[in-house]
Amino acid sequence: MAAIALPMHFLAPTRDNPGMSDPLPRPLLKALSDIFGDALLTDAVAIHGYGTDNSRRHATPQAVVLPQQASQVQALVRLCREHRVAVTARGRGTSTTGAPVPVAGGVVVSFEHMDAIVRIAPDDRLAVVEPGVLNGALQQALVPHGMFWPPDPTSAPYSTVGGNLACNAGGPGSVKYGSAREHVLALVAVTGTGDRIRCGAPTTKDSSGYDLVRLLVGSEGTLALIVEATLKVQARPQGRRALRALYRDVGAAAAAVARVMAQPVLPCALEFMDGEAVRLARERGGAELAEAGALLMIEVDGSGPALEAALQAVRSAADGPGVVALEEAVDEREREALWAARRALSPALRSLRAGKINEDVVVPVSRLPELVHRLGALAAEYRVPIVNFGHAGNGNLHVNILFDPDDAGERERAARCLPRVFDTVLSLQGTLSGEHGIGAAKRPFMAQAFDPPTLAAMRSIKQAFDPDGILNPGKVLPDAWTDADRG
Amino acid sequence: MAAIALPMHFLAPTRDNPGMSDPLPRPLLKALSDIFGDALLTDAVAIHGYGTDNSRRHATPQAVVLPQQASQVQALVRLCREHRVAVTARGRGTSTTGAPVPVAGGVVVSFEHMDAIVRIAPDDRLAVVEPGVLNGALQQALVPHGMFWPPDPTSAPYSTVGGNLACNAGGPGSVKYGSAREHVLALVAVTGTGDRIRCGAPTTKDSSGYDLVRLLVGSEGTLALIVEATLKVQARPQGRRALRALYRDVGAAAAAVARVMAQPVLPCALEFMDGEAVRLARERGGAELAEAGALLMIEVDGSGPALEAALQAVRSAADGPGVVALEEAVDEREREALWAARRALSPALRSLRAGKINEDVVVPVSRLPELVHRLGALAAEYRVPIVNFGHAGNGNLHVNILFDPDDAGERERAARCLPRVFDTVLSLQGTLSGEHGIGAAKRPFMAQAFDPPTLAAMRSIKQAFDPDGILNPGKVLPDAWTDADRG
Repeated sequence: MAAIALPMHFLAPTRDNPGMSDPLPRPLLKALSDIFGDALLTDAVAIHGYGTDNSRRHATPQAVVLPQQASQVQALVRLCREHRVAVTARGRGTSTTGAPVPVAGGVVVSFEHMDAIVRIAPDDRLAVVEPGVLNGALQQALVPHGMFWPPDPTSAPYSTVGGNLACNAGGPGSVKYGSAREHVLALVAVTGTGDRIRCGAPTTKDSSGYDLVRLLVGSEGTLALIVEATLKVQARPQGRRALRALYRDVGAAAAAVARVMAQPVLPCALEFMDGEAVRLARERGGAELAEAGALLMIEVDGSGPALEAALQAVRSAADGPGVVALEEAVDEREREALWAARRALSPALRSLRAGKINEDVVVPVSRLPELVHRLGALAAEYRVPIVNFGHAGNGNLHVNILFDPDDAGERERAARCLPRVFDTVLSLQGTLSGEHGIGAAKRPFMAQAFDPPTLAAMRSIKQAFDPDGILNPGKVLPDAWTDADRG
Repeated sequence: MAAIALPMHFLAPTRDNPGMSDPLPRPLLKALSDIFGDALLTDAVAIHGYGTDNSRRHATPQAVVLPQQASQVQALVRLCREHRVAVTARGRGTSTTGAPVPVAGGVVVSFEHMDAIVRIAPDDRLAVVEPGVLNGALQQALVPHGMFWPPDPTSAPYSTVGGNLACNAGGPGSVKYGSAREHVLALVAVTGTGDRIRCGAPTTKDSSGYDLVRLLVGSEGTLALIVEATLKVQARPQGRRALRALYRDVGAAAAAVARVMAQPVLPCALEFMDGEAVRLARERGGAELAEAGALLMIEVDGSGPALEAALQAVRSAADGPGVVALEEAVDEREREALWAARRALSPALRSLRAGKINEDVVVPVSRLPELVHRLGALAAEYRVPIVNFGHAGNGNLHVNILFDPDDAGERERAARCLPRVFDTVLSLQGTLSGEHGIGAAKRPFMAQAFDPPTLAAMRSIKQAFDPDGILNPGKVLPDAWTDADRG
């Protein structure tokens, strides 16, 4: 993925935190050194890699710390607050939005050494973890207990639970199981004042006071730094069955999605590819596919006779007007083969253009055909290829605007097309992000997505948790002046 | 249920809102009359009923308004803020915690005339409703679409969706489907400044900015008044099957609960009765039951062969050490018969004692045996009967402390026993409420449940949404001086 033209203000230090690109004050460095010892990094080579993420944005932090315990995080935040220095939490940098990129400099807190699985309690269906544990490592640890943690982003093998919580990660399984926010019971977190708060309870039901847990999930480290999470885990279904359905057009596929979701057996994946994606997978990805205007990959999970019954229920719902082909996998090998078309897609995209802007917008499922239609019109208007696939059951589309990074004109047209994509999504009652979050990438569009009183309410929460604005400045909420600019 | 001895401070006007029991200022009354006309009630007889709820607490409001549209609610809140008059939202008063009781006087906003179902969109799995619609009326309206809204409190036929959201209501179905908080996509709400905010999106996935939706759910009208809710609905399973299991003791039943929840078929009800409850249902409720130390009612939902497979999966998990009897309902009549034991319980409780304190505490499922054991010890220590039943799959126990309202000694012992129940629950890592909320009833215990920094974070949110403390004062958060009192 190549860098794209971006409004300058979110690559520069924010107005709230002037001077952040100066060296850290000497007394602060001394105090951090006392607390962190070797786990304080200031060498330019050592810290360079902590300044980027999968959005390919980069900003150099002034220091990196690798805490091993919550008390160090508290001490760090208090010191940084005293010196008005930015603090940006970081998992493994798989974010696609620039969320962990320290755009205002300051200190990056990498949780790579706080990666313990503190406790797994299968009887209570919970796991207590430190934020730096990898999603994949947690899943492995849960296997002997027959459990899993539902959030399944593509990055799961190498993304952290803390990062998954920061952006409210999802994945194909969200259509059945919901997103990260639905799978957290309690959090210990350090706010922008350095206070350690304990939110929620290790119980699967809780109506006691304000729900700070769900508020912190998805707040991308701008309200507090999560230092411990109690996750809700659940029993792992014993089997999966897959179905691939091809449709004449997107409208027929969307109608099938609505039928599948209107019957009681929720699929554990309901993935969509538009006609362009199907063509690419076939012509450039080598997938064996009929020509079609849209494709759905549907999976169900369960055990024994219930699994077969579930497959037949979704098969029957997927069938209907406009269906071109319905293929069912009878075993794991065939299941892999069905997914091959989807897997061929990313390399196929790269073979078409080296650059892509990938945004995970969401619209109500019934608006999917209109969204895909209007994206086609935008592709024509801006003369850039747009390929769409994603989690259809949630109306969560990954819109890929492709461009040649060496073609300045196309690169610029792609960048100019992006705000039109968001305009389109919002006009269809959609939302900016389903699972990637806002970060720096979609921050300029927040004032389009939310009206001034709602943004003001979000800002007042930011002010309450982080009165000096030191936690991950330049993310999620647009600066107040952005609103003023918009009049 | 009779009144019990309560700390005085939450029956009196709060310190933040002195003078609330004086008549409303004349200019305010005039302005309200202009806005509401006949829908402004000030007659003592007319407003009396708006001052109570199912906790049997009562406080007389100074006026009641029955808005028909959101703009009236906005105008009301702005006026009341100007005059520093309390505003308390009200559904149908089925709360068990005193949440809608206007303890600081002021204006009660009854949403009984804002009860429209604005839109049902089965393809998008959502329903847009006004807050005053009854849960039961919504369920009826969803039937033709084959959908339902999962929250199923016992009060469903006569409690409002707005009230269900205010306390994050649950019910037996929560074990499979989660609570109200998990079934809301978007809210329109009026904050304590009279601003109308639009939170969330009509999509089933959303990672865009701070989650104000989940924050408002469960905040009991202390942060904002919900004027419209977009609810997540889902396909209604076609059938239900029930199983009743009797166990030697609570430990054996809790182990069975853990086994049932550790296999992949989630039951849609997993209800518990302790030995005392079983004895009462048999001896005083006329239920045909063997003697047992504990009882579980288990239900599964689904369709066709999957339903039968689900029943056998949970049956096999429910069976095990300490099981005394396992009875399966083959049809709807038998299913009703199995539930009879549970239904016999409430009348049986009343036949034992006319007064009861019923709190819906939650502990991790593995701590249920210890909780029931320690509640037994408290019953002995305070010489009051304690009967426990509830939603075992979530560790959500309804603890019933029984007393004779005419026996001053027993009434007082019951009242003194209650804080010990909460102490016990909290020492087992539990939480004050699973589905009823905090209201006035559990507010004095919030400072035990949450440490000072966490309470301070909640207070800062209250301050952000309702800077003058006019929204439902005296609920959820203890006054700051209560903390000071506790040292």
